[in-house]
Amino acid sequence: MKVVRSITEMRAEVKQLRKQRSTIDHEATVGLVPTMGFLHDGHASLMQKATEMSDIVAISIFVNPIQFGPNEDFERYPRDEKRDLALAEKNGVDLVFMPSVEDMYPTPIKTHVTVADLTDTLCGASRPGHFDGVSTVVTKLFNIVKPDYAFFGTKDAQQVAVLRQMVTDLNMDIEIVPCPIVREQDGLALSSRNVYLSREEREQALVLSRSLHQVQQQMREQEEMTAGQVRAFLRTSIGQSDIAEIDYADILSFPRLESLAEDTLLATLDHEVIIALAVKFGRTRLIDNVILETKGVALHV
Amino acid sequence: MKVVRSITEMRAEVKQLRKQRSTIDHEATVGLVPTMGFLHDGHASLMQKATEMSDIVAISIFVNPIQFGPNEDFERYPRDEKRDLALAEKNGVDLVFMPSVEDMYPTPIKTHVTVADLTDTLCGASRPGHFDGVSTVVTKLFNIVKPDYAFFGTKDAQQVAVLRQMVTDLNMDIEIVPCPIVREQDGLALSSRNVYLSREEREQALVLSRSLHQVQQQMREQEEMTAGQVRAFLRTSIGQSDIAEIDYADILSFPRLESLAEDTLLATLDHEVIIALAVKFGRTRLIDNVILETKGVALHV
Repeated sequence: MKVVRSITEMRAEVKQLRKQRSTIDHEATVGLVPTMGFLHDGHASLMQKATEMSDIVAISIFVNPIQFGPNEDFERYPRDEKRDLALAEKNGVDLVFMPSVEDMYPTPIKTHVTVADLTDTLCGASRPGHFDGVSTVVTKLFNIVKPDYAFFGTKDAQQVAVLRQMVTDLNMDIEIVPCPIVREQDGLALSSRNVYLSREEREQALVLSRSLHQVQQQMREQEEMTAGQVRAFLRTSIGQSDIAEIDYADILSFPRLESLAEDTLLATLDHEVIIALAVKFGRTRLIDNVILETKGVALHV
Repeated sequence: MKVVRSITEMRAEVKQLRKQRSTIDHEATVGLVPTMGFLHDGHASLMQKATEMSDIVAISIFVNPIQFGPNEDFERYPRDEKRDLALAEKNGVDLVFMPSVEDMYPTPIKTHVTVADLTDTLCGASRPGHFDGVSTVVTKLFNIVKPDYAFFGTKDAQQVAVLRQMVTDLNMDIEIVPCPIVREQDGLALSSRNVYLSREEREQALVLSRSLHQVQQQMREQEEMTAGQVRAFLRTSIGQSDIAEIDYADILSFPRLESLAEDTLLATLDHEVIIALAVKFGRTRLIDNVILETKGVALHV
């Protein structure tokens, strides 16, 4: 495994590895796992998928300033390079790309990749500019690494939807591979931000996965359930934690992320839906979701 | 020369040609000339430059709807496929990519590549959304063709500045190669839109190149000339045509395209400047420009 810290060197390393691992009949493929570091088993599952699907596995570790709002946690976002490198090595990564902010943004960036509509709701509504920052940095990483596949966790389901739209619209020759959410044994979705939680908050945060679990159960039992009833159920369920502050608790079409009218009968829909939560526990905002057939059957997109 | 009409086929053709023309020591390079067709000698000069610099030359012919405003000339933009193909063939083109609008935009596009600041002035100010349309379609073409070089005429100097910014900001592994304006013998800059001009308008349109010529002469003679004096000179000079309607006649820094204060002494500047004109003759809007050292010496960027 090689650790690469400059853009120029990364281009050269990918090129060289591609050459080395290609044969006359088969051009070696590259899988990229873009991350912000402080890696956990969710990231490990992405790397494992990447090693299954590609001949060369690269991960990027870059806490991208332009996807954070002015009052968000860019400065205090957790970092642990040594542990990250150990985890990457263990999971069969060939190249770890760790550029500096100065290398990625040598001058203030004037160009942005923006995806309309899909970014108007959920985290896009709560975090203005966030997805522009994501799609822009992902485009940069794609142009540097030139992967055949890129792996993203569906904990950030909106991110997956946005990036798939981007890849399709801009004819990027890359397949976005979404990978299922990885959870702690007690249900908490893995996130680098879980480290922010106090013991009390960590316990209360279980209300997220529990609510998602219970609402699915309810949907299976109550065939005539409407979108409005799902929302009400979620608010009540999350309200059981007295420190949980709901940012959103919503059900939308997936992957189009279009709002569903309150009286929409879910069983009548012919497309998937996402139930998505963003909830603050103290200073820490956590997200979780499930993507479903409309009869309450969980899907791994 | 091969004419390719679908995105999938174009990817395959480029890949195959690259393979065919590469050797162990040298990977064949691809040069792309993006055009809207109705080709003229300006385009021919781009193709010639492309054949000099690259092993494989592709041109695209695509009248891109999303770079036209609602009251602009998308529908009546001139087209002549047969003549275009003959000119491409004559100039050593390997692949002509002519996608349909349906292939490029199968569903309404949600993703845009936008370049800030540089697009606020000149044609960007007169044609809102134009450059978003340009940078978006060029990104699509780049992702389909994956060229090493892309060739653009400096008649669209702002386009060159915008695309260079985009390529730098997004780490596209592509060199934008600007090529000098090609003119008729009497000075008129070549443009597919010249075909719109009546004989009278065609004659009056010479005021553009004449004004650019005269203002350079004036700058060489009058060392203390200010930006304001250049603007006044241009207005007077273009005013000599009684049908010319000025959209803009301006002098700005290049390639940053920052406005110069009226009292800026040009001789004191340490960067290049552009004198740029957009003028309507009847229904037809023409542009022309010259990029200069600040002492009135024309440069080919």
